Amino acid sequence: MKFIALLPLVLLSTAIAGLAADAPPARRPQTRSPEVSTDRHVTFGLQAPKAAEVSVSGQWAGGRTAMTRDTNGIWTATVGPIEPGVYEYSFQVDGLSMIDPGNPAIKPMREPRTSILHLPGRPPLLYDFQDVPHGVVHQHTYFSKSLGRPRELVVYTPPGYDQHPRTRYPTLYLQHGSGDNQATWVAHGKAHWILDNLIAQGRAKPMVLVMADGHAVAPGDTSPGAPKNLAAFETDLLENVMPFVEKNYRVKTDAANRAIVGLSMGGEQSLRIGLTHPALFAWVGGFSSAAPSAEAFGTTFDAPGAVNQKLKLLWVGCGRDDFLLKRNEEFIDLLKAKGIHYEWNLSAGTHSWPVWRLYLTEFAPKLFQ
Amino acid sequence: MKFIALLPLVLLSTAIAGLAADAPPARRPQTRSPEVSTDRHVTFGLQAPKAAEVSVSGQWAGGRTAMTRDTNGIWTATVGPIEPGVYEYSFQVDGLSMIDPGNPAIKPMREPRTSILHLPGRPPLLYDFQDVPHGVVHQHTYFSKSLGRPRELVVYTPPGYDQHPRTRYPTLYLQHGSGDNQATWVAHGKAHWILDNLIAQGRAKPMVLVMADGHAVAPGDTSPGAPKNLAAFETDLLENVMPFVEKNYRVKTDAANRAIVGLSMGGEQSLRIGLTHPALFAWVGGFSSAAPSAEAFGTTFDAPGAVNQKLKLLWVGCGRDDFLLKRNEEFIDLLKAKGIHYEWNLSAGTHSWPVWRLYLTEFAPKLFQ
Repeated sequence: MKFIALLPLVLLSTAIAGLAADAPPARRPQTRSPEVSTDRHVTFGLQAPKAAEVSVSGQWAGGRTAMTRDTNGIWTATVGPIEPGVYEYSFQVDGLSMIDPGNPAIKPMREPRTSILHLPGRPPLLYDFQDVPHGVVHQHTYFSKSLGRPRELVVYTPPGYDQHPRTRYPTLYLQHGSGDNQATWVAHGKAHWILDNLIAQGRAKPMVLVMADGHAVAPGDTSPGAPKNLAAFETDLLENVMPFVEKNYRVKTDAANRAIVGLSMGGEQSLRIGLTHPALFAWVGGFSSAAPSAEAFGTTFDAPGAVNQKLKLLWVGCGRDDFLLKRNEEFIDLLKAKGIHYEWNLSAGTHSWPVWRLYLTEFAPKLFQ
Repeated sequence: MKFIALLPLVLLSTAIAGLAADAPPARRPQTRSPEVSTDRHVTFGLQAPKAAEVSVSGQWAGGRTAMTRDTNGIWTATVGPIEPGVYEYSFQVDGLSMIDPGNPAIKPMREPRTSILHLPGRPPLLYDFQDVPHGVVHQHTYFSKSLGRPRELVVYTPPGYDQHPRTRYPTLYLQHGSGDNQATWVAHGKAHWILDNLIAQGRAKPMVLVMADGHAVAPGDTSPGAPKNLAAFETDLLENVMPFVEKNYRVKTDAANRAIVGLSMGGEQSLRIGLTHPALFAWVGGFSSAAPSAEAFGTTFDAPGAVNQKLKLLWVGCGRDDFLLKRNEEFIDLLKAKGIHYEWNLSAGTHSWPVWRLYLTEFAPKLFQ
């Protein structure tokens, strides 16, 4: 399998390797990692001659594996065989959790300590790159007037967007979790390939994905008068991000053509912002949400008939082994008590990206139909 | 300065921090890094209780600085004041070179061990985000038929591209170095902001930047029959990347509207591919190039009159303290001996990104004029 055979574990640096540094090329042996065998055993490697204890831990079955040291100070471990999928993993070097420096694929995070291992399926999985028409991922920096600083924004346009200059598209605002940033849904969630594949199969309508930076306030900023993150993000989304998107992309701007969903912290944001702005969003969801309590919704649920009439979908999902399950069940109880219509998806899984990728494949096809 | 005050060094994790992990939020103290003071002293921090020796080294004056450990096992060091700019830095933990896990800004590399510290200037520098019209950065995955696998591609369109649907633009193919990948010129080189600013000042023509992955072959792949990287990249560029770009973007397709330049390994690629394909590229450059020797050009230089007639610019730059200076001087000697016209820019500096950002600000304004 050519794609994965390109990652030899240990190689000698060639004359050309290392040219991009300030110094001439180093001649020491370099370690490349991970190396995937044709039967999907995966070998990790790290050169750390002075370390006393090194291990690798990932989302595959088995958890943490001790690595063993060779005479050159290179630590290795082989795990597997591992099923096709997208996995997070980290090295632990004398207790310090870190990315695999042999692997360019890093999960975008506020505190990057996690690498990505992507083993495409045969046949390909819904989040693999497939031989179908592809959309485009756009990176923007915009100046947030409400926050007073530049911010990052990622926008996916569906296949055919540039070929149909008179078509306007519906929009899904897709929020990340508290450890993530605006790049995580593409780099790790594979949202762009999920949509490409769902659209190619005729299961989802072509739509624009908007992935904003949900961290409007530095985490842990407890300085007096610091705005709460949810409120600051809501203002930035409504006053900066949405006008930016609707000025720069051909999107429909009625509530029936806008959806919002997010995971964990982003689930809290999407449920609160979506449900309290029925004039903006008719499709709302939460994946493994830090679901808000009743007070967050003010008087919104006092007129359930009006809510149900405007809302086309309220989709709530959580895994049985998620530490936020109780909070989601309480949210469902609240909706039940108030008479708000919802779809509740109690699934297998923990608070993790394999669940969220799956949820996107279930949620996106329900939108704008 | 709000922008940089958002990075407190040490903070307690809040209930919301850590939600994106598989486990409930951790309550241990977390370390955020870097923290920049208003006078541009920069404090780095890393929690590594079991480490014996930790230091930070960066591109600022002073080089490596030892970090000191507090009673919680948090290592810190303060450097500076540092002039505004974009800096690379790494931590060394018991000899292991690694990114700063407190900093989401990572230099895209084949072996990621380097974080980015960006201190915007006042007034802003040519590579800072400024209050001017902005272009858009696009991420693509395309299937390379010649390499038999999916590949990544980054394309910048200039401000106004979407507003002028009948305009076709010239194209600059911009190649990275051997330690980098297709994302490095934007994430670290700030090529998109450099172009935004040059275009806003009327100094550069609006142009499309194409940033392909210059690693067509795994580095160090010395298996028998393995294609040479330069040849494999040339084929991928000409047969896959250029047709993809010219199908998906409104670009002019004559040589007078195509330029190619790169740094280090990418300089070798751009000089070789550019000069041996005069029907494709009339503007060619090399930044601190791994400049090819005479044989690489075959019979190209045997008819200097024809070369000089077609070539609108051959721009070669190298720093006085660059370890590739001799190779560039030999290349200039070759051009001189053959009677090929060129511009030679012997500048200050080493083999490093501050030089390459500057070169882009000098090279881009000369194009398509």
